[in-house]
Amino acid sequence: MAQKPSIPKGTRDFGQVEMARRNYIFDTIRGVFALYGFQQIETPAMENLSTLMGKYGEEGDKLLFRIQNSGEKAALAPEKGLRYDLTVPFARYVVQHREEISFPFKRFQIQPVWRADRPQKGRYREFYQCDVDVIGSDSLVGELELIQIVEEVYRRLGINVCLHINNRKVLAGIAEVIGAPDKMIDITVAIDKLDKIGVDAVNAELQERGLSVEAVNALQPILNLSGTTAEKLVALRDVLASSPTGLKGVEELETLFGLIENTGVTLNIELDLCLARGLNYYTGAIFEVKALDAQIGSITGGGRYDNLTGIFGMPDVSGVGISFGADRIYDVLTELNLFPAALQSTTQVLFTTFGQDELRYALGWAKLLRDKGIAVEVYPEPTKMKKQMGYADAKQIPFVAIVGGDEMAQQKVMLKNMASGEQQLVAIDELVGQLKA
Amino acid sequence: MAQKPSIPKGTRDFGQVEMARRNYIFDTIRGVFALYGFQQIETPAMENLSTLMGKYGEEGDKLLFRIQNSGEKAALAPEKGLRYDLTVPFARYVVQHREEISFPFKRFQIQPVWRADRPQKGRYREFYQCDVDVIGSDSLVGELELIQIVEEVYRRLGINVCLHINNRKVLAGIAEVIGAPDKMIDITVAIDKLDKIGVDAVNAELQERGLSVEAVNALQPILNLSGTTAEKLVALRDVLASSPTGLKGVEELETLFGLIENTGVTLNIELDLCLARGLNYYTGAIFEVKALDAQIGSITGGGRYDNLTGIFGMPDVSGVGISFGADRIYDVLTELNLFPAALQSTTQVLFTTFGQDELRYALGWAKLLRDKGIAVEVYPEPTKMKKQMGYADAKQIPFVAIVGGDEMAQQKVMLKNMASGEQQLVAIDELVGQLKA
Repeated sequence: MAQKPSIPKGTRDFGQVEMARRNYIFDTIRGVFALYGFQQIETPAMENLSTLMGKYGEEGDKLLFRIQNSGEKAALAPEKGLRYDLTVPFARYVVQHREEISFPFKRFQIQPVWRADRPQKGRYREFYQCDVDVIGSDSLVGELELIQIVEEVYRRLGINVCLHINNRKVLAGIAEVIGAPDKMIDITVAIDKLDKIGVDAVNAELQERGLSVEAVNALQPILNLSGTTAEKLVALRDVLASSPTGLKGVEELETLFGLIENTGVTLNIELDLCLARGLNYYTGAIFEVKALDAQIGSITGGGRYDNLTGIFGMPDVSGVGISFGADRIYDVLTELNLFPAALQSTTQVLFTTFGQDELRYALGWAKLLRDKGIAVEVYPEPTKMKKQMGYADAKQIPFVAIVGGDEMAQQKVMLKNMASGEQQLVAIDELVGQLKA
Repeated sequence: MAQKPSIPKGTRDFGQVEMARRNYIFDTIRGVFALYGFQQIETPAMENLSTLMGKYGEEGDKLLFRIQNSGEKAALAPEKGLRYDLTVPFARYVVQHREEISFPFKRFQIQPVWRADRPQKGRYREFYQCDVDVIGSDSLVGELELIQIVEEVYRRLGINVCLHINNRKVLAGIAEVIGAPDKMIDITVAIDKLDKIGVDAVNAELQERGLSVEAVNALQPILNLSGTTAEKLVALRDVLASSPTGLKGVEELETLFGLIENTGVTLNIELDLCLARGLNYYTGAIFEVKALDAQIGSITGGGRYDNLTGIFGMPDVSGVGISFGADRIYDVLTELNLFPAALQSTTQVLFTTFGQDELRYALGWAKLLRDKGIAVEVYPEPTKMKKQMGYADAKQIPFVAIVGGDEMAQQKVMLKNMASGEQQLVAIDELVGQLKA
């Protein structure tokens, strides 16, 4: 026999059980997006390389999967690469279709992305992203609705979470007041690692990145700010008194927390001044969601950006968006055993087959049941009872309808409940009643 | 301003209206698949090039999109290419996961594929395929169920269709009896073009492909066979009397037509001896579905194969499958104006915003409505009435809830029906009642 075929490193096949579970996650999220008027778009897997290059930093450029041009005019065609995330294609989409779009534009997008990362546990070269954004409005209602969406999605999925929130203007203000206004990015990149590497390592990195000892010292009280959200905001107003940008950030947070309270959001929300998020394009609120009962890092994150479409020549369009990490949500649901049991099987009853007459009889019943919306399978050929029962077991089909001469003579089937082992002779109406119940 | 960004030739963006329509098609098909116990799988966009090469003929090899390896060990990694269809990845999947699969394996798969074809009207370099197969059984129940699925999918979509059916064993028998047993593929490839190029051109091509004038002449009565299906089958039994393979094909057709009659299938079905389908791997029944009220060619096609997994070292596994052409179905539904009108908007009511108090009031109502499963939008910032109404129009939102001081004082909203222009003052319970109706 030939060598068993395989798939490229870092990619995955999804079997029927995994697909049912993934669809459960996506359908849940999609259902919540719809309540807020977000609509789905899709963009091509391949973009012109010029759309992608330079958007993800030097490291990102190296991780782009490039596509070889083929065909006679290969040399003339623009180079292409596979989508690296959904954000840059979204920005490209907005600029390209600006005339057709009615702003504020509320879109979501659920598609795979590809990165030539070194594959390792939990990191894949192909994985799905699930992004939701509203673009073309700087209203904090955008932030509020995304927070409500997070609340409802995780309520429906049954995952306890805490949403961490911060504001990039506050971080910029902090950089200003500690005397390192040009180091905002360095500061955010370093303190973003606080959770992972600890305060000493962050301080060391801050100095490596050119912050003076005085600036690093000045930063410490801010990293350690505690108390209620209201207390933190009051303290921040003091600290940032000399920075208009910083005060604007505090004001945005105050307004947003006011909206959150007014709208009855009951989600755990923590103002987390150590939350930075590495991406450079954020300019206002930033979010990260952590599962409280699983050790897995962030399962959703995002923020406000003021110039995402500027890279494609359409400046000053503000938006806010978040991305749900489907793979991590899948892992949390698996770890906490939170997937609904009924997902695994769609088929409600399997008809056995022991001969051609029985087969025709079963096919007739199957049609009647399917016409009533009941999912049915007919074992396609006569074979041993054990094999047919094994098939029902493997697919977790809850009922088996056994058809023999006696049953046919009475216009009935012998219905076996696979969980209890009970059997009873039923007519078609009784069968419909049982399966619909 | 920079040059407007664009996407690679032959690829497409799908906006919210197109996505709603595409999802309607896929959801309809998926719903029918589920009634028959077919379960979804997904495979990676990229396969090892060795999995793909040599499976689609020389021409196909040229149309594969190859991916450049990147990273330090690029030279050592296996070459990769983008999925060209769903059939070869499915065969690879079955062989790779044979130990986990319980046969007969009923799977469906809806994913994009990529081909470096010359882009032209209706032909794309990225397009979705929607395949359903049962593998691991040679029972004609497989053929029957696929025919039932075709019937139900097009009934639900409202498209009148005719299913053309033939059998490759019959075609092989014909090749035998006209004295050209080694020319079965040449004959099928040529007569597959009968619809497009006409009988004279087909005859000319048959001679070019090495058939004698006698053989071409002997073929003519078969191409012109007419009458009912039963009459055609009787005539075929005569013609193919000397070919065991041909007779087996006739018997399969007889059994299948018996099952079709027994199960109450009312679909238009035509035994079409000129149907050949170009693909070499078919060995039994072959199908093609045409829309009766649109000139668009085949919108669904497939057939029985006996050795699909043989290329990956797992011989003698019979299966049968069909593929729904989503792009063509989309075009037929558009041409015949068959998409449900309600697809375009999910949002049922838009709340206007004329000030911060009104905004907070609307956000409170919106939460109550969403808790009842009603899709709601709140215009995110105070602006002119005209702009907010324009937004509702563009998104085809059927109701607008206008909120001002008077309405707030009475704990009501002014509800405007966007189709009729009618306005009425309603309390929250009345609003829920109207929107749920």
